[in-house]
Amino acid sequence: MAAPGRDDVAGLVEQAREGRPRAVARLISLVEDESPLLREVSAALSPHTGTAHVVGLTGSPGVGKSTTTAALVAALRGRGHRVGVLAVDPTSPFSGGALLGDRIRMSDHATDDGVFIRSMASRGHLGGLSWATPQALRVLDAAGCDVVLLETVGVGQSEVEVSGLADTTLVLLAPGMGDGIQASKAGILEIGDVFVINKADRDGAQSTRRELRSVLGMAERAEGAWKPPIVMTVASRQEGLDDLVEQVDLHREHLRDSGELQLRRRDRLRREIRAIALESVRRRVGDLSGHAELDALAQDVLAGRTDPFSAADRVLSEL
Amino acid sequence: MAAPGRDDVAGLVEQAREGRPRAVARLISLVEDESPLLREVSAALSPHTGTAHVVGLTGSPGVGKSTTTAALVAALRGRGHRVGVLAVDPTSPFSGGALLGDRIRMSDHATDDGVFIRSMASRGHLGGLSWATPQALRVLDAAGCDVVLLETVGVGQSEVEVSGLADTTLVLLAPGMGDGIQASKAGILEIGDVFVINKADRDGAQSTRRELRSVLGMAERAEGAWKPPIVMTVASRQEGLDDLVEQVDLHREHLRDSGELQLRRRDRLRREIRAIALESVRRRVGDLSGHAELDALAQDVLAGRTDPFSAADRVLSEL
Repeated sequence: MAAPGRDDVAGLVEQAREGRPRAVARLISLVEDESPLLREVSAALSPHTGTAHVVGLTGSPGVGKSTTTAALVAALRGRGHRVGVLAVDPTSPFSGGALLGDRIRMSDHATDDGVFIRSMASRGHLGGLSWATPQALRVLDAAGCDVVLLETVGVGQSEVEVSGLADTTLVLLAPGMGDGIQASKAGILEIGDVFVINKADRDGAQSTRRELRSVLGMAERAEGAWKPPIVMTVASRQEGLDDLVEQVDLHREHLRDSGELQLRRRDRLRREIRAIALESVRRRVGDLSGHAELDALAQDVLAGRTDPFSAADRVLSEL
Repeated sequence: MAAPGRDDVAGLVEQAREGRPRAVARLISLVEDESPLLREVSAALSPHTGTAHVVGLTGSPGVGKSTTTAALVAALRGRGHRVGVLAVDPTSPFSGGALLGDRIRMSDHATDDGVFIRSMASRGHLGGLSWATPQALRVLDAAGCDVVLLETVGVGQSEVEVSGLADTTLVLLAPGMGDGIQASKAGILEIGDVFVINKADRDGAQSTRRELRSVLGMAERAEGAWKPPIVMTVASRQEGLDDLVEQVDLHREHLRDSGELQLRRRDRLRREIRAIALESVRRRVGDLSGHAELDALAQDVLAGRTDPFSAADRVLSEL
């Protein structure tokens, strides 16, 4: 019953579930652009989510994240999985469905019905990854993806944020990346569920492995806890990918059997709900920018008749 | 009637107005640390604010911001003004009343009753400068400072934020800082009310001035609008400071006579009120972290019974 020119959300969701790429792309655009239909889309997706396993890929620039993502797609497709790829660039204000830059390497898969690839920008979104990315994940999940690969372009805090969105976090390293693992990768080591030493045909791969193994060995783990394995790959030649997929599967089973999967996802949803709530208030407060009431309150503070905190209370009581 | 061990806010404000440094320092700590007394402090300060002229100093590292700040303090003290200095470091999580690093150059003034110097950190505060800094400005204003100098340590976005808090923004340049003014200083040129070419005894000072003058000349200005002057200084030798103080005075008069002062301050307060309102909501949402309700909502989303947006609405309706 959609009005002409208006997106028929229920229809789009139906088509996305059938794996139609245009419907998937359209739904991601609707959530990413924060369309007025965002809520309707989210509600329509909800009953169909919860099956996709989200795999985050993090690592310093140069370790081969994009190549590993492409190789993983190939390996997962080889097993008949439907795969989604979200490449998030926290430093770019631009986004879109097109394959950008490095993404061109993914073009082998661009015509494959079983793969959905999307580049997203997260700059400009309050909370970076925390807001738009989960909505896009939800679309790919509802579209029947067995696995969604979440890759950040660039560096920084987003690496840790990825692990907050992923069921399984892959931490990629490469031999000869300079400074020792212990010093530079402190935060990264804690979030890795599976470690990947890519470019394993290069000098120093074995010593990087030894060093990593020794650092990981020092971590205290509870009885029955997951011990992050180290996988050696040469993603550019598709080497080691079967092993990697197997370790991801093992981790997935561990999460499911231990009940940790539900806990992780509940934590993720709690953060997501809070982020949405905050963003919603932020907008309502932002809408007051040109509001006469806010002007009057500012004037009252200027005149010493009230203080900014009491004025803020008044603003909030108006919402 | 303060309980033992509790800060007597009214008493502190009274002492601050008399110019007692310890009371000023204590009040800034109370607002900066977001003490439970924050609101009480803000309310008590309100009737006594609005007289200080806030002068922001921005510029790339190496132009001599700290030296110019110190020289300005000396010049303003020479005219009998009571002066406050807020040095905000947006990259540091540490703050305090102590003179830190570069601030040591200010030690000439450290024993001077008419000068209050404070280093603040803004990292960790939501909105960077937008939250804690205005509260500290308010304390120095109520303490009877005729002028408050607001200097950011470091670089980046905070330079523009400074102008949002200041009545008069000084943009500092120095000769031979590399790339041309036009290319690198686009955003900075728009916020400058007075331009200072410091280290004016160095080679290239005159060409920097010519270049700046030509760029400023291209800007379109309304009839009667302020034309930002260029002042040449050698702050380390106290040269050009009289001229600088005079230009600041002229700008202050212009702001007052044109009515722009009230407009700027009202805009500032509107932003401040909104920042406080948002922070207040952020906390209340944050307080729900371990809340059973949020857990239950996340569980409902997990089970597909609701979606994150409806859940967020529920969270907000609980507040």
